[in-house]
Amino acid sequence: MPRVSAAHLAARREQILDAAARCFVRNGFHHTSMQDVIKEAGLSVGAFYRYFSSKAELIRAIAEEKVGTIVGTLEHLLEQEPPPTMPVVMAELLAQVDRNLGEDGPVRIAVQVWGEAAYDPAFADLVGAIYGRIRDKAAVLAAKVDPAADPAALAAVMVGLVQGYIVQRVLAGRVDREVYLKGLGALMSRYGAEGAHEAR
Amino acid sequence: MPRVSAAHLAARREQILDAAARCFVRNGFHHTSMQDVIKEAGLSVGAFYRYFSSKAELIRAIAEEKVGTIVGTLEHLLEQEPPPTMPVVMAELLAQVDRNLGEDGPVRIAVQVWGEAAYDPAFADLVGAIYGRIRDKAAVLAAKVDPAADPAALAAVMVGLVQGYIVQRVLAGRVDREVYLKGLGALMSRYGAEGAHEAR
Repeated sequence: MPRVSAAHLAARREQILDAAARCFVRNGFHHTSMQDVIKEAGLSVGAFYRYFSSKAELIRAIAEEKVGTIVGTLEHLLEQEPPPTMPVVMAELLAQVDRNLGEDGPVRIAVQVWGEAAYDPAFADLVGAIYGRIRDKAAVLAAKVDPAADPAALAAVMVGLVQGYIVQRVLAGRVDREVYLKGLGALMSRYGAEGAHEAR
Repeated sequence: MPRVSAAHLAARREQILDAAARCFVRNGFHHTSMQDVIKEAGLSVGAFYRYFSSKAELIRAIAEEKVGTIVGTLEHLLEQEPPPTMPVVMAELLAQVDRNLGEDGPVRIAVQVWGEAAYDPAFADLVGAIYGRIRDKAAVLAAKVDPAADPAALAAVMVGLVQGYIVQRVLAGRVDREVYLKGLGALMSRYGAEGAHEAR
């Protein structure tokens, strides 16, 4: 058996995850078999199973990779001095969604994972862990962007705005980033201390 | 064959849809068979198939019924004079989500439908039609609540906030209505004309 480098192993792993993502986006988890992914990846069965042994493992690996990207974007925003304003933060987060709406569309897979998590405890655990990491990081950012606000509460709404944007972008196609940011600008401009008072 | 009244037919239909909802929430669409729904509804196969002939029909009927409830809530808010403020509108919409998070949880089914729609064109059409009806009604409400805003843009964000709340309530369980409304209050209070300017 030939020696394989770490770089080779990592590249193969990427190749498989990209192939799996394409299959899931095209046909859904339930209508994708391991055979479909192996064929899409162009690997032998033996080579494939050295990396992943189930669809659940593939989904988990794709999710882990993508949550890393999202947390990275939040960290990038956290490093900015002076801290970015909320409109800048939201514009950047929505831009990241749009960058991931493409052909192998990890954002499309996220919506499928949510659907599974609505009834499957294993998926619910996965989503809960991902959401926890994102929301914790978003809370650190919220505290920096608006020191006067409750960071966990503001983070929940920031994340909720992104999740709603994802649902609309993936499923309805009648919204774009400019329109959504315009609506958000209206929401943020109309209510002063009075609005906050009423909502609290 | 005995004559059956319209009321009897409607009650039977309700009984079947409630049973289907319980099965879908418990096991997911893909792991629910027509046999499971028939058993849950406590009907004979013959009686059942007079009402519904496929899972897709069941899902469509559940979705249609629930979108009716949501549009009803928006219409109720529209009838109020003077018009409700945005915080009042959002509090009422989130309260409706919470009222539908229970055992046969139509909200949980909505998240499953989104997951299916991410790759299945038939589901995508269903979701697109539902979203269109809700967003059109939300735009009429937005125009009344904030006549200065672009109604379609503000409606997209109002609906997005609710969708994000649904994702978090169904999947992550770390948010409640009070926290989410508190975060929304902070978002709406912090940015005056300046925030709107930046976001636009």
